[in-house]
Amino acid sequence: MKANLGWFFEHYKLGQVIEHAVPRTVGTGERALYHSFYPSRYAVYSSDVFAQSCGLPRSPLDDMIVFNVVFGKSVPDISLNAVANLGYAEARWLLPVYPGDTLSSRSNVIGLKQNSNGKTGIIWVRTEGFNQFNQTVLSFIRWVMVRKNNINYPAPQTVVPELMDVVPALDLAVPLNMSFSTYNTVLSGSSFKLSDYSVGEVIDHIDGVTVSEAEHMMATRLWQNTAKVHFDATARSDGRRLVYGGHIISMARALSFNGLGNAQMISAINSGTHVNPCFAGDTIRAWSEVLDITETANPNVGAIRLRLVASKGVSSKLCDTEGKYHSDVLLDLDYWAFIPK
Amino acid sequence: MKANLGWFFEHYKLGQVIEHAVPRTVGTGERALYHSFYPSRYAVYSSDVFAQSCGLPRSPLDDMIVFNVVFGKSVPDISLNAVANLGYAEARWLLPVYPGDTLSSRSNVIGLKQNSNGKTGIIWVRTEGFNQFNQTVLSFIRWVMVRKNNINYPAPQTVVPELMDVVPALDLAVPLNMSFSTYNTVLSGSSFKLSDYSVGEVIDHIDGVTVSEAEHMMATRLWQNTAKVHFDATARSDGRRLVYGGHIISMARALSFNGLGNAQMISAINSGTHVNPCFAGDTIRAWSEVLDITETANPNVGAIRLRLVASKGVSSKLCDTEGKYHSDVLLDLDYWAFIPK
Amino acid sequence: MKANLGWFFEHYKLGQVIEHAVPRTVGTGERALYHSFYPSRYAVYSSDVFAQSCGLPRSPLDDMIVFNVVFGKSVPDISLNAVANLGYAEARWLLPVYPGDTLSSRSNVIGLKQNSNGKTGIIWVRTEGFNQFNQTVLSFIRWVMVRKNNINYPAPQTVVPELMDVVPALDLAVPLNMSFSTYNTVLSGSSFKLSDYSVGEVIDHIDGVTVSEAEHMMATRLWQNTAKVHFDATARSDGRRLVYGGHIISMARALSFNGLGNAQMISAINSGTHVNPCFAGDTIRAWSEVLDITETANPNVGAIRLRLVASKGVSSKLCDTEGKYHSDVLLDLDYWAFIPK
Repeated sequence: MKANLGWFFEHYKLGQVIEHAVPRTVGTGERALYHSFYPSRYAVYSSDVFAQSCGLPRSPLDDMIVFNVVFGKSVPDISLNAVANLGYAEARWLLPVYPGDTLSSRSNVIGLKQNSNGKTGIIWVRTEGFNQFNQTVLSFIRWVMVRKNNINYPAPQTVVPELMDVVPALDLAVPLNMSFSTYNTVLSGSSFKLSDYSVGEVIDHIDGVTVSEAEHMMATRLWQNTAKVHFDATARSDGRRLVYGGHIISMARALSFNGLGNAQMISAINSGTHVNPCFAGDTIRAWSEVLDITETANPNVGAIRLRLVASKGVSSKLCDTEGKYHSDVLLDLDYWAFIPK
Repeated sequence: MKANLGWFFEHYKLGQVIEHAVPRTVGTGERALYHSFYPSRYAVYSSDVFAQSCGLPRSPLDDMIVFNVVFGKSVPDISLNAVANLGYAEARWLLPVYPGDTLSSRSNVIGLKQNSNGKTGIIWVRTEGFNQFNQTVLSFIRWVMVRKNNINYPAPQTVVPELMDVVPALDLAVPLNMSFSTYNTVLSGSSFKLSDYSVGEVIDHIDGVTVSEAEHMMATRLWQNTAKVHFDATARSDGRRLVYGGHIISMARALSFNGLGNAQMISAINSGTHVNPCFAGDTIRAWSEVLDITETANPNVGAIRLRLVASKGVSSKLCDTEGKYHSDVLLDLDYWAFIPK
Repeated sequence: MKANLGWFFEHYKLGQVIEHAVPRTVGTGERALYHSFYPSRYAVYSSDVFAQSCGLPRSPLDDMIVFNVVFGKSVPDISLNAVANLGYAEARWLLPVYPGDTLSSRSNVIGLKQNSNGKTGIIWVRTEGFNQFNQTVLSFIRWVMVRKNNINYPAPQTVVPELMDVVPALDLAVPLNMSFSTYNTVLSGSSFKLSDYSVGEVIDHIDGVTVSEAEHMMATRLWQNTAKVHFDATARSDGRRLVYGGHIISMARALSFNGLGNAQMISAINSGTHVNPCFAGDTIRAWSEVLDITETANPNVGAIRLRLVASKGVSSKLCDTEGKYHSDVLLDLDYWAFIPK
């Protein structure tokens, strides 16, 4: 059998290291497409001149371009047979990625737990992305539920990794020489800096985007994500193509510009869950709650911790009721972003 | 309130200068997408080698990329609450924009007039686009009808700016060193030069393009245009997403290659109106009428003044009847283009 | 008449050379879009670093980008009035194309045959693509059935060119300095090299992609292909937009990565037929049959000859029955690819 059918639960071993295939040179073409898929307006990722005013050599590629490319590479080895993408933790962006850089990706199996039904199991992996100098640019943990192919295969010893609740703000990797000391809030599109936000504040991002089939497929394919359910209308019994979770994160984050225009760069994802599936025709909205405002190791750069919630409802404020998510909620993400103080 | 709800009529003051947010570095990615959205084949914008044969250092970015980026930046401050985008005048392209340039945008309020219903008003702005050297690359006037938020706010003094009917041909800004003296009409795709056209001649551009939802949203988003009605199917009571007017101009201009293949670069827009709304599923066609053929200040470069009409009808020749536009007419644009003599 | 209505059968003369219009500078923007339209993962076309490990200066543009651009230029002169695109032969990629190169295209009429109905005829052309140094980068033969405009025009003398069945493997143009001697099969995404395949082996590529209207139009437009039937829903009596044949080739070839991940570059197309039309909503699948495995003139690089079949059926193995193609078959292509030995 020459074609890859994907891995099944019994194939994963604790400590296993999986080099993911097909390194990828990314550039301004990927950036233009990113701006075409998502209403992204963060100035550091939009303008070389603005990025230079923040101490960077030029505009790096959007944090979620890096995430999606590194994630996409892991799909054929990790989640091709996934029943569900259960969560993210400890994601840290460690170095900016610039047009012309070449990204590759590797995962380490750090946890295993067979489910009681004996037919599926959960694997935890730490996935890392590297540039052409073999420097780590991104590291994150995710866990997925994967089918067993041979249900008679014995269950592995259960190992559930301990996950940090929150990446400490002082561990956030501020890019070398980055400074917001001469930051221009007129050009950035928002006058609100770190001290203008308060913990507990909720921001409605107002705008909505109705998802189209072509857009979510093009975006997902751009990241070389090969999961059938996103592209093949015959793969699910309902004939619908599932929108890739990373598309929802990118969309919600882009929408959050309207109210958080200075939260320039995602620096870490503390936790994240794709709550409900999304399909073409759904209109995505988002709101954020401020969870923390604090310092980084760089005196010129602050950090804001945000809960970003995306929903497909008409109302943008559909929170959980009775401890359960409303069926319209798509995403619940807890992340850190850099912001001028 | 952290999110931008847009400006209302009572917020604008005569003489006010509005710096628009989020500078943008544009490049060959935006160009590739432009060729993907529109059937554009003008050789100067397609080939570095052809552009060099015309005296330019390399292929500049399409005139309508520049227009759409500069316009897009103005949307959050000018037309987020617009009821209608009423018209354009005195648009002049002043310098070519090349891949790697960073564009920013600024508007000046030059006219105000509250409507008799007291609920809306018209504002006139001159919007200018700048490159990273702070050189003006584009300047245009547009006027929009904007809602009042506080209808009790007193009406401003009415000031209606005087607008030139036509930018004088001698004021058209021919790019430095541009020359059509060694112009190759085989490579350009059309054998017709300035002297082959006559005033009053009407050219049917034949081809039609059926608009898809994903394409017009991706194009509009690429210009960081944030107007809800283009993206959010719940924003209008009819559940339809309005196609951005700049998408119609770009489409009609690209279609006009078939018959005007040597009208290489738009140099000025004398006037323009979006006559009727366009939605996905409509098939756009275009025809042009030659309004003038003349000299520019550069002896090697001629200018042709064209009326470009786009319609969504099956017939491409649906002109006005009894002084009113036919309901199929989408666009009526009067512009100057550079053409070899 | 200023607009091009396309050529008719009686306009073509044996030996005629047609320079196609509008040279095109291609780059990383076109590459990003290619990755967005097709699930392409061949490492040489994805990563500068991987391409360098194969002796190339950097990642060339995908072979089918080059084919589609060169083909697209020929459409206004060759196939605007084509009733059918009947076949390909003797296609050879002669030099890699890199981002920044400018492509132009020229065709030579090498065969003519009026059909017995007197209303149409078949023309055979050899189309060549050139870079900015006037080096031939691609050469192929195709034949199309074209309408006559004046059915009273006398039939030309019938000349049917003799076509090679197969481009000899020793004539395949291995790029200068290319070597697979340090080839990394982990990074390439497949462990199977030339010697792992056997003649007659059939590989099911498993995955399917459901075609959307926006995607096929954007892809086709990117190649400046102007044929009405792909873009204008009113051009056919059934109101459907025909998917461009090159879109099917690119899609099937990209799908074939899953099972042929080391068949890095298409070097020649021996023959090819678009069997049935494809429309938005169809789900494309593909399978390959190994026709030959052999040496090239370069001792480090092998060649694999493949039959690539695309179908729109749920089953990926719908072969011909009773010598006729099944109505679900879209493409039957016979090509050579370079592969490590």
